[in-house]
Amino acid sequence: MNQAELSAFKQFVDREGVLLEGAAREDLAGVLQGCDPVLGEVLEYALFGGGKRIRPLLAILAARICGRNDRELYRLAVAFEYLHVATLVHDDVIDNARQRRGRDAVGHRFGMAAAILAGDWLHARSMHLVGRYAGPRGLDIFCHSTAGMVDGEFLQLRYVADPEVTEEQYFSVIHRKTALLIASTCEIGALFGGAGKKQQLSLALYGDRLGTAFQVIDDLLDYQGDSAATGKAIGNDFVEGKMTLPLIRAFAAAGREDRDVLASLLRQDRTDPAVQARFSGLVDALGGFSSARQSAEQMVGEAVSALDVFARGGNPESLAMLKALAGYVLARDK
Amino acid sequence: MNQAELSAFKQFVDREGVLLEGAAREDLAGVLQGCDPVLGEVLEYALFGGGKRIRPLLAILAARICGRNDRELYRLAVAFEYLHVATLVHDDVIDNARQRRGRDAVGHRFGMAAAILAGDWLHARSMHLVGRYAGPRGLDIFCHSTAGMVDGEFLQLRYVADPEVTEEQYFSVIHRKTALLIASTCEIGALFGGAGKKQQLSLALYGDRLGTAFQVIDDLLDYQGDSAATGKAIGNDFVEGKMTLPLIRAFAAAGREDRDVLASLLRQDRTDPAVQARFSGLVDALGGFSSARQSAEQMVGEAVSALDVFARGGNPESLAMLKALAGYVLARDK
Repeated sequence: MNQAELSAFKQFVDREGVLLEGAAREDLAGVLQGCDPVLGEVLEYALFGGGKRIRPLLAILAARICGRNDRELYRLAVAFEYLHVATLVHDDVIDNARQRRGRDAVGHRFGMAAAILAGDWLHARSMHLVGRYAGPRGLDIFCHSTAGMVDGEFLQLRYVADPEVTEEQYFSVIHRKTALLIASTCEIGALFGGAGKKQQLSLALYGDRLGTAFQVIDDLLDYQGDSAATGKAIGNDFVEGKMTLPLIRAFAAAGREDRDVLASLLRQDRTDPAVQARFSGLVDALGGFSSARQSAEQMVGEAVSALDVFARGGNPESLAMLKALAGYVLARDK
Repeated sequence: MNQAELSAFKQFVDREGVLLEGAAREDLAGVLQGCDPVLGEVLEYALFGGGKRIRPLLAILAARICGRNDRELYRLAVAFEYLHVATLVHDDVIDNARQRRGRDAVGHRFGMAAAILAGDWLHARSMHLVGRYAGPRGLDIFCHSTAGMVDGEFLQLRYVADPEVTEEQYFSVIHRKTALLIASTCEIGALFGGAGKKQQLSLALYGDRLGTAFQVIDDLLDYQGDSAATGKAIGNDFVEGKMTLPLIRAFAAAGREDRDVLASLLRQDRTDPAVQARFSGLVDALGGFSSARQSAEQMVGEAVSALDVFARGGNPESLAMLKALAGYVLARDK
């Protein structure tokens, strides 16, 4: 991305972000009438904390590139932010996390009960909106991906600190955990936009490749990101024993001796900074990080290629923004 | 209910229970293909633990009395059991409960992460089924009630151990927490059954009165039930400071002195059996329990009256079972 493209992308994100936030506030104001004010307060805190809003932006762009652009689009798009935030809030309860995006996690601030309940509320409301605006077919796609997310979390628990985890198993986890929802967001946006089958499939493929790359980068940033930028401590994944791509690649590249060292470090006290530094250093030396990044770059390339079907005619601005979003996934540092 | 009616009702519950369980297992087998086996294990444990299945039975009866009776009805009905179990599983995490229905709570047995995730899965699947089988209008009613349940929990937290809580506030909590879903179950069943507006409204009213009575009796059993039968310790509500109808009625009937005693006991260590016994004894002496039971009886009467519209023609067996279910709500001891 050159400077002009980056600047156009940022303008787009800011402009749409304002419209999305307005749509979310309008939705909440309507549906929370007569409800307990604390519920509203928790939702306000959870939803408007400066997230990147990638999912609703994708829904908007997918619908637009297929030819639809009206106010209802924002009403549908907020559903994807609701669901995403619901999963973050529940994940933070599960992980007993204190921080998210550089401030108190919802459960830490309002208590576990409020966090679980607010997550349930967002979950229900997101389904309601998708059912209303994208119809039974949209709801089918959406629910398939939400059920898949839960399944991905269970799979992930199964593979904790297991050095035998294969690349195929890793990708099956992140497919369910992350890519499925991003793919379904694009697909539902396309459906809502009146897309034909070919356009729907292309956008679903774009979302799948983008979502997978997004998670690979997320897993990389967990080791390489700047703690202030991500708002969480480096090495959370290592502490939890998550077998992410850099680790799997390092194991694959390692000789017998290095494999034993890696496996032994995984069994030691993973909260110990010295253990963390040795482990991370060895993964780096074995090319785990660079190899994982290369794979993410390749997937982003595949995502962009999936957009070829929209190259002629259609909507050049939306096409440019979908490409810019793919570039952003690689460039982000938090 | 006389002996013959009771026996017919029990036969009905057993017969339909087998069909419902079959439908749930069929649904799970289809949708869990390729999923992590632990997810299936947690769902199996959560769903097939001997619940009363009142909600799916209501959906079935409401559809049948409106003239529909086919296999798809069971597929819709399991959605109401899924949602109910999802809320129980999350409630038990919130309350840190060890026991439910006389055995380990899901979170206690499989851990909090599994419980939150399995609840999310059931939540999503219930919406999916309602959207698929009852259409956008059914999903609207359903989501309105699930959002209301969350709101009811927030309201309830607000009123903890507050002796000033009014009867109106109590009923607004249990309306959201319990009655709304039971009313919407009946309404969606009616909708699915092809009911006209009048039949839908009558069944929604029946469900609202029945659900309210159900919760009042639940709140009574928390003080008067047999611990072995309910599978939980007597006085859980008191420990949590829940202001239920017997307490509100006792405060209303009390003179200044008794009011002060009740309020002071509420502020003491509510886990102390001596405090519990004194409090419960005083509520009883002030007529709190008998007065709450009278109200429940009156509501059940209103529920049964709402069925008058089905008195002629229609489906005599379903009418009898809806009436028997109302009688069961009053007669149950767990």
